[in-house]
Amino acid sequence: MTYLRNCWYMAAWSGEVTAAPFARHILDEPILMFRKQDGDAVALTDRCPHRFAPLHLGKLDGDRIQCPYHGLKFNAEGRCVFNPQGAGATPAAASLRRYPLLERYGGLWIWMGDPTRADPALLPDYPFLEPGDRYAREQGYMHTKAYYELLSDNILDLGHVDFLHQGSLGCEATARAKPRTRQEGNRIYCDRWMPDARQGPLLNMLFERDEPVDAWIDVVWDPPGLMLLHFGMTDVGSAREGARETLNVHFMTPESERSTHYFWAGCRSFRRDEPGLGDTLRAGVEAAFSLEDKPMIEAQQAMMGDADFWSLKPVLLQGDAAAVLARRTLAKLIEAEQEAASPAAATAQ
Amino acid sequence: MTYLRNCWYMAAWSGEVTAAPFARHILDEPILMFRKQDGDAVALTDRCPHRFAPLHLGKLDGDRIQCPYHGLKFNAEGRCVFNPQGAGATPAAASLRRYPLLERYGGLWIWMGDPTRADPALLPDYPFLEPGDRYAREQGYMHTKAYYELLSDNILDLGHVDFLHQGSLGCEATARAKPRTRQEGNRIYCDRWMPDARQGPLLNMLFERDEPVDAWIDVVWDPPGLMLLHFGMTDVGSAREGARETLNVHFMTPESERSTHYFWAGCRSFRRDEPGLGDTLRAGVEAAFSLEDKPMIEAQQAMMGDADFWSLKPVLLQGDAAAVLARRTLAKLIEAEQEAASPAAATAQ
Amino acid sequence: MTYLRNCWYMAAWSGEVTAAPFARHILDEPILMFRKQDGDAVALTDRCPHRFAPLHLGKLDGDRIQCPYHGLKFNAEGRCVFNPQGAGATPAAASLRRYPLLERYGGLWIWMGDPTRADPALLPDYPFLEPGDRYAREQGYMHTKAYYELLSDNILDLGHVDFLHQGSLGCEATARAKPRTRQEGNRIYCDRWMPDARQGPLLNMLFERDEPVDAWIDVVWDPPGLMLLHFGMTDVGSAREGARETLNVHFMTPESERSTHYFWAGCRSFRRDEPGLGDTLRAGVEAAFSLEDKPMIEAQQAMMGDADFWSLKPVLLQGDAAAVLARRTLAKLIEAEQEAASPAAATAQ
Ligand code: FES
Ligand code: FES
Ligand code: FES
Repeated sequence: MTYLRNCWYMAAWSGEVTAAPFARHILDEPILMFRKQDGDAVALTDRCPHRFAPLHLGKLDGDRIQCPYHGLKFNAEGRCVFNPQGAGATPAAASLRRYPLLERYGGLWIWMGDPTRADPALLPDYPFLEPGDRYAREQGYMHTKAYYELLSDNILDLGHVDFLHQGSLGCEATARAKPRTRQEGNRIYCDRWMPDARQGPLLNMLFERDEPVDAWIDVVWDPPGLMLLHFGMTDVGSAREGARETLNVHFMTPESERSTHYFWAGCRSFRRDEPGLGDTLRAGVEAAFSLEDKPMIEAQQAMMGDADFWSLKPVLLQGDAAAVLARRTLAKLIEAEQEAASPAAATAQ
Repeated sequence: MTYLRNCWYMAAWSGEVTAAPFARHILDEPILMFRKQDGDAVALTDRCPHRFAPLHLGKLDGDRIQCPYHGLKFNAEGRCVFNPQGAGATPAAASLRRYPLLERYGGLWIWMGDPTRADPALLPDYPFLEPGDRYAREQGYMHTKAYYELLSDNILDLGHVDFLHQGSLGCEATARAKPRTRQEGNRIYCDRWMPDARQGPLLNMLFERDEPVDAWIDVVWDPPGLMLLHFGMTDVGSAREGARETLNVHFMTPESERSTHYFWAGCRSFRRDEPGLGDTLRAGVEAAFSLEDKPMIEAQQAMMGDADFWSLKPVLLQGDAAAVLARRTLAKLIEAEQEAASPAAATAQ
Repeated sequence: MTYLRNCWYMAAWSGEVTAAPFARHILDEPILMFRKQDGDAVALTDRCPHRFAPLHLGKLDGDRIQCPYHGLKFNAEGRCVFNPQGAGATPAAASLRRYPLLERYGGLWIWMGDPTRADPALLPDYPFLEPGDRYAREQGYMHTKAYYELLSDNILDLGHVDFLHQGSLGCEATARAKPRTRQEGNRIYCDRWMPDARQGPLLNMLFERDEPVDAWIDVVWDPPGLMLLHFGMTDVGSAREGARETLNVHFMTPESERSTHYFWAGCRSFRRDEPGLGDTLRAGVEAAFSLEDKPMIEAQQAMMGDADFWSLKPVLLQGDAAAVLARRTLAKLIEAEQEAASPAAATAQ
């Protein structure tokens, strides 16, 4: 499996990265993150170019990370600025790869490809995630031992909630709803309309409903694995305008070919300040994912082993359209990136 | 290593499979078993054709298994009979492989090859294993991390009992006995005659002997790894006819190239109803295997690593004749099966 | 990675091997060691030639090891001398590989290559390790999950002590000292002179110093991974002659491509009989290694994965000269050994 490189991946929630070294593998690469004294976060390779010690085991001296093994110090640009060994010359080759890092929407976004192409405008818009008092927000991070496309499939094919999340999120209407899928450029939309049906208990609790309602869940996917969900309910037959709605994001970042960093957040513009509600919602989401989705997706990965997804000839159901489009779009983007990177392509330019 | 496919493998003891989903890997394939409402057991692939979820995590609805992920239901023939997603069409391609399953001798036997060739007559005869009151019976299942041929070797070369099972089954006569080995078709016989010698403590306890006896242990091997042992004792110089004898089976089913499902049973027509005797015997067999055979066979496998058995140039001893014949017979059967399955063979037909 | 075979590797400290079977993997090969009744130690392959059972699970009968599985007995030369199976003939092919084993310097040294070339004179001299009362000695064994060249690098590039062992062995002078490196034949010398500087706490405790001193640490490396360190201190400006000095050895033996048997000893001719001092020193060395070096070297190995060291293009610092020379010398010796072993070379002779 090949990764798309020229795109933004969520590397961490902003609060995860402080003035202490923080390490995470992304796209199989060891990444070191920390905040400089001015508060800006940086991302460098976590591997010392001298003898490959993991730098996150070292200490920060102001904005400089010191290798724990032989004491080389590197500044926030990744340049070696101090060599305690012998005469102390700092070899020019001793520099760390610096990754473009963008802080936006309460998260840190990393660019794993060509740094000259790291355009902040390429990150989709999630304005409701910007700090402010319009929305109350719950968020979290969950590690999963499965390839990230399986996690995207999970969100793009919400027909699973009625079965996997029977007691929490599921009802009988999600699967039954005919998803309307469409693509615009590399963005994929998948909307479900669930008229006159009771929703699941966790949602009913939040929306303060217990009777049949008209509900919708509209998903937007952007490459490589960024998903936005609008979920709302209203009285049967009423207009959607003005109805309560939650905005939810699910951002998938590959750690490796068998594991994923899963970042999620849920925002609501109603019941914002109610004591304890946020904790209840966060616990509900985390329970649903860690007890229901995660074991299923990890079992799915184990069943698939090292086989390519398509080689296993999956049967396609109606609800799979969006997930299949997303997989194909991603494959095309990766193919284009590979071709552009090949020597033949270089010659042709 | 390649498996023989057109033969019966023991998949489970009858009592292991109930009206709840039961999963076991056989020949590296994930198998789901359950009993229908009429009591018949079925074996299906445990992998949902939609997105490869393990079906045994799902629920049975009568004779239909429902996939835990998106709710497809499959009947006992493996056909998809319910699709809760969207308009609910059940795609023809969405079917599960059904494996022929035969219930006999208190066990469930699975056919991993061409279903049209699954002839019950191909299973060897073990009539004493049929329910009835002629025999008292102990049985068990033990998982072992070694290729199944190493477990067959263990039973076919009983010269090991004097060393590995010194305090329980061993005596000094088993190894010394010259095994008489012969082959009839694909069946291999290996008989040991141990005249005028004391047998091991567990056997003496069961046979109520403590003095030297004439004893025999006659082994029959059938492919792929089915073994029947007759063990008996009589007064020195007496006829075998009418003497006490136990009938023991050892059935080996490959889980993978490094692990085996080991099914065993021991039957006796004497001391059938004695309270506690069965428990003592079962505990004795399980202790001998799990404390003595299993660690040795697993250590053997670890020493061999991924190497082919013959490539390691094993030294052959007199007692190895049966095990070597069995290995060669199995290799020939597998080769014949492979050739028959090759395109050239198909053309020639 | 290929191992150098025609050389002595330390297999065990003398005291580790007794009249009971002792097993250790060396260069990926399973080795059985034990002492004969006359006290001499022998090294044989730990794998029975019959069915590959690990012999160290068997029992010694005088100088003969009995296989735990089917009872073959092998004498200390590795020849099969007893076969309890059937008629009892001992097959000529049933012999164990015997490895030349040399007991010297309180250790057992094994020769993994051509036995006709196993010349004791090829083992470097460490006379201070011979039993006697001139030196007090602490020694130990530590297992590490990293290739042994990373452990040799660690000792050959002592510039790391100031960072990795800040609170115990480190000072500010080790890294700063310009190492003088030279090679004589396959032996590499690397001397560091640290004038007028305070040394680290553990060393100051042992040498009973607390003020700035002149100190030196001189390392000698011999293939494949044998290192001798002289460490001493004297008053600033005084002659080295007559000053207190410790003699320390670090012997690295590959267990596998990812793990090492690390043997160390420290000898001192002063404060020899002081109660408790030896325990304090041993605890100090073991804490420094197991809490500081070992996690770093294992992390280094994890960062490198299966990549070849040079393929990762390590940046070279001044202190690396000796380690790089050692790696190159070893590579040349292995290359020469491989060429000599190739059929073309055989023809040419
Ligand atoms: S490994 Fe970082 S300074 Fe040596
Ligand atoms: S994986 Fe079984 S229904 Fe989707
Ligand atoms: S394995 Fe050693 S005697 Fe059989």
